[in-house]
Amino acid sequence: MTDLLTVDEALEAVLQAVRPLPGTWEPLAQALRCVLAEDVLADIDLPPFDKALVDGYAVRSQDLTGEERWLRLGERISAGQTPTRGLAVGEAAVVMTGAPVPPGSDAVVMHERTRSGDGGVWVEEAGVRAGQNILARGREMRAGEVVLSRGTILKPAHLGVLASVGRTSVRVVRPRVAIVPTGDELVEPERKPGPGQIRNSNAIMLQTMAIEETAAADVLPIAPDEPDPLRQVLARGLESDVLIITGGVSAGQRDLVPAALELLGVRRIFHKVRLKPGKPLWFGTGPPRVAIGQPGPLVFGLPGNPVSGLVGFLLFIKPALAALSGRPRAQGVAEARLMRVFRHRGDRPTYHPARLLTGGDPHAAAPIETLEWAGSADLRTVAAADGFAVFPAGDRDYDPGEIVGFLPTR
Amino acid sequence: MTDLLTVDEALEAVLQAVRPLPGTWEPLAQALRCVLAEDVLADIDLPPFDKALVDGYAVRSQDLTGEERWLRLGERISAGQTPTRGLAVGEAAVVMTGAPVPPGSDAVVMHERTRSGDGGVWVEEAGVRAGQNILARGREMRAGEVVLSRGTILKPAHLGVLASVGRTSVRVVRPRVAIVPTGDELVEPERKPGPGQIRNSNAIMLQTMAIEETAAADVLPIAPDEPDPLRQVLARGLESDVLIITGGVSAGQRDLVPAALELLGVRRIFHKVRLKPGKPLWFGTGPPRVAIGQPGPLVFGLPGNPVSGLVGFLLFIKPALAALSGRPRAQGVAEARLMRVFRHRGDRPTYHPARLLTGGDPHAAAPIETLEWAGSADLRTVAAADGFAVFPAGDRDYDPGEIVGFLPTR
Repeated sequence: MTDLLTVDEALEAVLQAVRPLPGTWEPLAQALRCVLAEDVLADIDLPPFDKALVDGYAVRSQDLTGEERWLRLGERISAGQTPTRGLAVGEAAVVMTGAPVPPGSDAVVMHERTRSGDGGVWVEEAGVRAGQNILARGREMRAGEVVLSRGTILKPAHLGVLASVGRTSVRVVRPRVAIVPTGDELVEPERKPGPGQIRNSNAIMLQTMAIEETAAADVLPIAPDEPDPLRQVLARGLESDVLIITGGVSAGQRDLVPAALELLGVRRIFHKVRLKPGKPLWFGTGPPRVAIGQPGPLVFGLPGNPVSGLVGFLLFIKPALAALSGRPRAQGVAEARLMRVFRHRGDRPTYHPARLLTGGDPHAAAPIETLEWAGSADLRTVAAADGFAVFPAGDRDYDPGEIVGFLPTR
Repeated sequence: MTDLLTVDEALEAVLQAVRPLPGTWEPLAQALRCVLAEDVLADIDLPPFDKALVDGYAVRSQDLTGEERWLRLGERISAGQTPTRGLAVGEAAVVMTGAPVPPGSDAVVMHERTRSGDGGVWVEEAGVRAGQNILARGREMRAGEVVLSRGTILKPAHLGVLASVGRTSVRVVRPRVAIVPTGDELVEPERKPGPGQIRNSNAIMLQTMAIEETAAADVLPIAPDEPDPLRQVLARGLESDVLIITGGVSAGQRDLVPAALELLGVRRIFHKVRLKPGKPLWFGTGPPRVAIGQPGPLVFGLPGNPVSGLVGFLLFIKPALAALSGRPRAQGVAEARLMRVFRHRGDRPTYHPARLLTGGDPHAAAPIETLEWAGSADLRTVAAADGFAVFPAGDRDYDPGEIVGFLPTR
C-alpha cells in the first residue's frame, strides 16, 4: 500500500503535466466565467462625446453665478441626436439622459431643479458647478487603452465592457473535454438494463462537472470491452485537451483501457492512488496533437463506480482544468467539525459523504454529519450530501466535535 | 422624494406579483442548477442485482470459518455478464467489480487477499463476513421509491441519479427571460457608433446575469424610439415569463416605453424607486398568456445606463427569478467594513462600486474599499469591482472602519 502515490503526490504529478492552454475565440455568451486570454483595447473613447447623465438643461455654469438665473431656451437634444450648434451665452439646451451636450455648455441642471417661465427656464439650483452631471468624453476609457487584462475571469459586467468596445467574440481559455464511458455492462440511460447491465450515470455527471469549470465537454459513445472499437473511441477522445475515461482501470478488468492507451501513444504517469473510493485512478499524457500545434492531452482513467469517479474529478481533474485555464487554484479540502461518532477502518485515506448542518457558529469550522452510505456505487447518498468528510488512513473511532477535512461537492 | 417607494417596499411589490412557474421539460445538461419540478421515482431496483464491489472471488462465507480456507474455482463473471448457475459448496467464482455475484454466494473476497494454488484459490483473509464487498439488489434504491423530491436544486450528482433511473430529460423550473434594448442612440456592438450613438452593452450583461440564475434568456432586436415598432418588439417580449426592457423609462424620455406597455395591457405597479443609481426603474405585470395558460409576465423597465441596469437586476430581478423558480432567496446585502474615507452626498440610498480587500479577519465583516467612479454610465469601474457599498440617504462623511452594507455582484 505504501508504494502507491498519496493524493497530494498524485495531484502534484497531474499539475506538473499541465501546459496552460492558449485561447480560443468564443462568442461573448460562451465566454462567461472563462479566463480572458488577451489584453482587450478600447477602440474608441467612451463615452464618445460629452454626455448628459440626467434629464435637464445643458448650461454654461458662468451664466448662473448671479441671483437671477433665467436662461432662454435653445435646441432640444435627445439621446441618439447630435447638437446642431454651440450653446450661446445666456442659453440652455434641453438634454435627455445619454444625449451629447452642445459645445460651450459645461454642466447639466436636473429638470427637477428648474421651472419654466417667461419663455425660458428659471434655474432654482444655486452654485451650479462646471462638469456637473456630464460624463466627459473618454472619462470611462480612452481609445487604445487596455480595458481588460489577460487573466481576468469574465463576469457579466466584463462582457458588457467587451460589447462597449465592439466585441462580439473574445479569446478565452476554454478547455475541451471528451468523456468516454467504457464497459460491456453499461447501457444508455434511455434503455432498460438487461441482466447484469447498468445504466450509464457517470457521463452526464462528469460532463456537467466539467461544464461548471467552464470546459466545453462532450460525451462520446459507450466503448465496448473490445480492443479495436475501444481504441477507435479513445483515439477520438485524444483530440481534446482532456480525455476522461470511466471504467476499465480496475485490477481485474483485463487491462483493456491501459493497453489501448499505450497503443495510442499515451504515456502513463501513474496508476492507482492511495485513497478510498477511487484507488484505481489512471493518469497519463497523450501524444502531441501536431495537426493543431498543441501538446498532448491529459488522460484520466476513472474507476467505473460513480462515486469513485466523482471523487477523482474533484481531487484531480478540477484542479487540472483550473491550471489549464490559468485560473487560481480553488481551495480543495477545508476544515469541518464532525457532529457524530464515526468509526473509520482502513489503510487508505477515506472520503465519506457528509452533509453540512445549519446553525453552527459562522466563525468556526462548519458542523457536518456523515451519512449512511452503501459505498462507491451508491450515488444517491452522495447526491444528497454536500461533500465528503476526509478521514486519514488508519483504524480510529472519531468523536463528535473532532475536526476533520471536508471536500465540498459544491 | 419621500413619495417614492424604498428599495424594500419595491422588492416587496415585485415579490407579491410573482406566481411560481410550473416546470418545463429540459434535457439533463440544461437542467443543471435548476429547481426540480417533479418527484422522481426509481423505475428499477438499484443495483438491479447483488453486485461485486471489488475484483476478487464470490464465496459462501460459511465455507470459510475454518483454518483451511481453500476453494475450487467456479465460473468467471465479468461486469455485464450474468452467472450461469449458483455457487456450489466449497466453490469460488471469479468476479470483477460491477459484476453480479452468483446465487448462493454471500460475500466477495478481494483479489489481494487470496493466492492461487493447488488448482483452486487460498483465501488468506480470516473472518469473512456475510455481505462483505457486495452491494445488495435495491440497496441504493427500490423501484417505485421517490429518489429525488420536487424542489431539489440539481447538482451534477443529481443528474447522475436521474440517468440511473432512466431519465434523459426532467421537469424543472427554468424561467424564460426576454431582453429588449431600446433607444435611438443604441447600435449593436459590432458597429462603430456614429455621432451621438453608443453601443449596446446592456443586453449581453443582463442576458448572462439571467443565465447565471438558470433562466433561458434571449435578446430581442434593439427597439427604436417610435411607438409602433417599439410596441411590436415589446409584444414579442411579453410571451416570456420575464420581460426586461432597458432604456426609455427616464423622466425626459417622452414616456414611450410606459405608453407602449399600457397599450399592450401591462399594468404598472410602480415607476421609480428611491435609490441611486437606478431611480427610474419601472415595474408591472403583463396580461395573462391565455394561449399557454400562464399568468402575465413580470415586466421590468430598467434605465439605460448600464450600472443602473445592473443594480436594478441585482436588487429586483434576481430575487424575482429565484421566487419564480421556488428557490430560496439568496442574501442580498451583507455587512462590510469600509477601509477608506467616503464622502456621501444625496437624498437617496446610494450604491457605489467597491472591491473586497484581502487579508481581513475571516471571522469579521469583510474589508472593502470604494472605487473612483464616474457614475452610472461607467461600467468599466463596476466590472473591476466586487460589488457595491451601500450608503443610506443623507449627507455624511464615513470614516475608515465603519460598517456599511455590501451588495456583491458575485
